[in-house]
Amino acid sequence: MTHPVLINGEWLASSGSQTFQAVNPATMATIDGDYPVSPWDEIEVAIQAAAAASREMRGWPGERFAAFLETYADAIEARADELGDLANQETALPATPRLKDAELPRTTNQLRQAATAARSGSWTCPTIDTKASIRSMFGPIGPVAVFGPNNFPFAFNSIAGGDFAAAIAAGNPVIAKGHSSHPGTTRVFAEAALEAVQNTNMPRGFVQLIYRTTHNDGCRLVSHPLMGACGYTGSRSAGLKLKEAADRAGKPIYLELSSINPVVVLPGAIAERGAELAGEFTSSCLMGTGQFCTNPGLVLLLAGDATENFISAVADKFAEAPIGTFLSEGVQRNFAEGVAALQSAGATLLTGGQCGGGNGYSHQNTLLRVDGTTFLADPEALQAEAFGNGSLLVVADSAGQLAQLAEALEGNLTGCVYSDSAGSDDAVYDQIVPALRTKVGRLLNDKMPTGVAVSAAMNHGGPFPATGHPVFTAVGMPTAIHRFSMLQSYDAVRPHRLPPLLRDEPPGNGCWRLIDGEWSQSSVGA
Amino acid sequence: MTHPVLINGEWLASSGSQTFQAVNPATMATIDGDYPVSPWDEIEVAIQAAAAASREMRGWPGERFAAFLETYADAIEARADELGDLANQETALPATPRLKDAELPRTTNQLRQAATAARSGSWTCPTIDTKASIRSMFGPIGPVAVFGPNNFPFAFNSIAGGDFAAAIAAGNPVIAKGHSSHPGTTRVFAEAALEAVQNTNMPRGFVQLIYRTTHNDGCRLVSHPLMGACGYTGSRSAGLKLKEAADRAGKPIYLELSSINPVVVLPGAIAERGAELAGEFTSSCLMGTGQFCTNPGLVLLLAGDATENFISAVADKFAEAPIGTFLSEGVQRNFAEGVAALQSAGATLLTGGQCGGGNGYSHQNTLLRVDGTTFLADPEALQAEAFGNGSLLVVADSAGQLAQLAEALEGNLTGCVYSDSAGSDDAVYDQIVPALRTKVGRLLNDKMPTGVAVSAAMNHGGPFPATGHPVFTAVGMPTAIHRFSMLQSYDAVRPHRLPPLLRDEPPGNGCWRLIDGEWSQSSVGA
Repeated sequence: MTHPVLINGEWLASSGSQTFQAVNPATMATIDGDYPVSPWDEIEVAIQAAAAASREMRGWPGERFAAFLETYADAIEARADELGDLANQETALPATPRLKDAELPRTTNQLRQAATAARSGSWTCPTIDTKASIRSMFGPIGPVAVFGPNNFPFAFNSIAGGDFAAAIAAGNPVIAKGHSSHPGTTRVFAEAALEAVQNTNMPRGFVQLIYRTTHNDGCRLVSHPLMGACGYTGSRSAGLKLKEAADRAGKPIYLELSSINPVVVLPGAIAERGAELAGEFTSSCLMGTGQFCTNPGLVLLLAGDATENFISAVADKFAEAPIGTFLSEGVQRNFAEGVAALQSAGATLLTGGQCGGGNGYSHQNTLLRVDGTTFLADPEALQAEAFGNGSLLVVADSAGQLAQLAEALEGNLTGCVYSDSAGSDDAVYDQIVPALRTKVGRLLNDKMPTGVAVSAAMNHGGPFPATGHPVFTAVGMPTAIHRFSMLQSYDAVRPHRLPPLLRDEPPGNGCWRLIDGEWSQSSVGA
Repeated sequence: MTHPVLINGEWLASSGSQTFQAVNPATMATIDGDYPVSPWDEIEVAIQAAAAASREMRGWPGERFAAFLETYADAIEARADELGDLANQETALPATPRLKDAELPRTTNQLRQAATAARSGSWTCPTIDTKASIRSMFGPIGPVAVFGPNNFPFAFNSIAGGDFAAAIAAGNPVIAKGHSSHPGTTRVFAEAALEAVQNTNMPRGFVQLIYRTTHNDGCRLVSHPLMGACGYTGSRSAGLKLKEAADRAGKPIYLELSSINPVVVLPGAIAERGAELAGEFTSSCLMGTGQFCTNPGLVLLLAGDATENFISAVADKFAEAPIGTFLSEGVQRNFAEGVAALQSAGATLLTGGQCGGGNGYSHQNTLLRVDGTTFLADPEALQAEAFGNGSLLVVADSAGQLAQLAEALEGNLTGCVYSDSAGSDDAVYDQIVPALRTKVGRLLNDKMPTGVAVSAAMNHGGPFPATGHPVFTAVGMPTAIHRFSMLQSYDAVRPHRLPPLLRDEPPGNGCWRLIDGEWSQSSVGA
C-alpha cells in the first residue's frame, strides 16, 4: 500500500507512480509501507490550496494561529510513544532519552513558544510615528515550503519543527516536504496536525504534506509566483539548487547548510583542565553519532606539550567510545568520502577511518590532524564538512597563525573558545576572537556548541555557507518568525482601517510597540 | 584631465584607460572633465583596503561612526551651493527648491539620524536572556558596496545617501560606485567625506569611490569573499545581474528595482473631490519629470461617468503641464520604448506619446488607458515600468475585477487608495485592500506615494521585483541599518568579554534592550 499525501485538508492517493521506502538504519532492513514521489500536478494543487488559505486568513488575529499551535502540541503529546518508536525505527536515534524525553518536549515547547509569540504579537514589531502619521509592522508573507532535514525527526521536522512553527506563527500556510529518511514519523505528525487544523477551524490548505519531489519540482515549488518563502535545512548541494531557483524568482529562502563549528582550545585551558576538556569535546563530537548541525568538526589548537597530551587523550577517548549508528546509508557514504577528502588535502588519521564498527550504517569514530601551515595552504578543502562522528584538529605554530586560521574560516553556526580561568590565555583570546566573531553566528566561551537553547537571544544562523543570510536565525522565538514575514507600512491610513496592533488603543494582549522611539505596552499618548 | 579615484584614503590616478564624461541633459552638451572606468586591479585594491578598515574597526563603539557621520554632514552643508549647482548641471533637476532646499537637507538629516542611531545603539537590538545566559545583538557585516541611482543625486548618492548612511552607522566601510550621470556631484561628496574621514581619524579604507566598472567587474565586486554586502538602487536589468552574482556567493544584496506604485481612485472619492484629485495625481506623476522610485505609474479605476470625467480632467492637465527634462538620454529612450510597449500590449494613448517638447532630453507628458479585461489578459506586459512622466489608467468593469487587478499586481514599493469620506467606497475598499496589502511595502490612504518620510515606521521596500527581499526597508532610521548587519549571539561568554551594550550595566547612552522579554533602558536586574 502506498501512503496518501495530505493535500487541501484530505489524505489523497498520490497520482505519482514512483515510490520509496524507509530503511531501519540499525538493521539496514526496509520498513513496510511505500511513500509516493509527488508529481508536479499534485504539488501545484497544494500550492493553489495554500494560496487560497493565505487569502482566507488575511487579517486574522494571532490568536487563531496560537490556538492551532497549542492544539497541535497537545495532539503530538497524545501520540508521543508512537512517534518515539517510529522515529527510533527510522533513524536509529534512541527512543529514550533522546527522542521521547528530549526532542519531543523540545518540539512541543517550540510550538507553544510560537503560540505565545503569535498571541502577543510582539514579534510583529509594531512601530508608530505619530508625527509623520506612519505606522508599520511585520505581516505574513504567504505560503511557506518547509524542507526538513534527516537529523532531527521531531524538532526540525518539516511539519512540526522550528521552521514550521515560525511560519505558522507569522500567519502563513505551510507545505511540508518530509525528509525521505523518516516518512512514517512525518506522517504521524501530519495526522496530528490535520486533527488540530480541523479542531481549530483552520482552512483546508493551511497545513499540507508531500513526502518527496524531484529536484526539479522542488525548484519549481520554491520559485512559484504564489509561494511566499521557503525554509530549508539539509545538504549543501540540494540546498544550493533550491536557493538558485528561489533567488532567481526573488523569493526569500532561508537555508541551514553545512557548518563545522570551530572550537579553539587554548593552552592555559588545557593546562588547567585538559582531561576534563578531552571528555567534554569527545561527548559533544560523538553525541548522536556526530549528526548535529552544531557538531564540533574542527578544533584549533596551539602547538605545545600540553596540547600534544590533550590530542592523545582525545584520540584514546575516540577509540574507546562506542560507535553509533548513522541516520542512513547516505550519511555513512558521505562521511567516509569526507574523511578521505580531508586526508587527500593533507590531514593525517589519528584514530578511526574505516566504515563499520557499530550497528548497521556506521563508521569508526574518527580523529584527524593537520598543521596550521598545511591548513592555510588549502583552507577550502580542509574545512569541507564531514558530517558524522569525526573531527579535524588543526595545530597552529603560533598565536599569530591561530589568528590567521580564524580569518581563513568560512561562515559557521558557532565558534567556541576555551581559555583558562587565571587569564593566561587572555592575550591570545583577544588576538583571535575579533576575527572568529565575524565568521560565526554564535560565539561560546568554555562550552561546546551542541546545545541549542530556544531563546530570544539564540542565533542558530551565521554567514554563508552556514546559512543563506546572516541577519536571520532558525531557532529562537520570536526572532525566527521574522523570516516568514514582510514589512508592511501604513501611511496616513485611516485609524479604523489599521490592523488592531497599530491602532492607538491596542488589543489587551501585552504587545510591545515602538511608539515615537520608545518601547511601550501602553496606548498611544498614555 | 581624468579625475582620480578615491582609494585607501588618497586620490589616485586610475590605472584604467577608458573614460566617460557627464552630459548636461538640458543642453545635451558634454561637461568638461573625464571620469575613469576602474579596471579590476583597482577595485581589488579598494576591497583589500576596505577589509583592512573593517578589521581595524572591530569592536569600535557607535560613537566613532556617529562622529564621522555628523562631521560629514557639516562638511556637505559647507559645500551646499557648489553641490546644488553641479547637480543641477548634471541632472537638470532645479537647483532650488529641489536640490538645495529639499534634497540636500534631507540628505544631511539622514546622515544625522544615522549618527543618532549609531550613538544610542538601539538599532543593534541587544537581547538578553539571563536564565539561559545567552545574549545577542546585530553587529557590522563587513565592507559594503553601494551603487547609487540616477534620480536622487544627493539623497541616494552612493557616497552620501541612505544606503551609505545605513552601512556606515552599522560600523562598515563603504566602497561607493557613483552613478555615471552625475560624477562631478559624487566627486564633491567624496572630497567632503575624505575630509571628514581625516578629521575623525577613521581608517584610510573606510570610504572609497570609484566612478564606473564593467558589468562583469561589478559582479566580481559584490561577490568577493572579503565583501560583506551590497546596496543597489537602479535599473532592473543591471540590478538582477548583480543579484545573481551576489546570491551565488551567498552575499546579501539589497536592491531597489522597478515599481509602478498603483493608485486606486474609487468612485465616491471622484464624486466628492474629482477635480482636486486630478490635480493631485498630475502633480505627483509629473514631479521631477516622473523620475521618482515611487512615481504613480498605474491608476486603477472603476468604470462609470464620474470616472470618465476624472480621466478627461487628468488628460487635460497632462497636456497642459510643462514638460520637464529627463536625467539622461537613456531615460528618454527607455521611457519612449516603455510607452510603445504598453501600446503594443493593448493600451491606448490619451495624450502625449512623442519624444521632445521640453528642454534637452524630454518626452511629452503621457497618459495611457486600458480596460481591466485587457490588463488581466497580459498583466506582465501591462505592468512593465515606463520610468518617466507618464501613467497607465486601468478601468475595471466591476469591483470584483478591481480586486482581480489587485491580485494580479507584482511587488511594488507603494499602493494608494482614495475613497470618499462618507463611506460609500468602503465596501469596495475592503474588497481590494487585503490583496493590495500583500503586494506593496507601504499602503497609503488619500495620499500620493511620492513623499518618502525618513521615519522608523517607513517602509521603502516591498516584494520582488520592487526590491530583493520584503523584510527590509531602504529608508528609515534605524530600520534601514539592519540590512548591513549580521546577528551575533554570545552564549556563556564571560561578562567582561561581552560588547558593552550586552553587559549587565550598559553604557549610559539610553540604548533600548530586550531583557528577558521586556524592553528597557535600564541595567539588567534594575
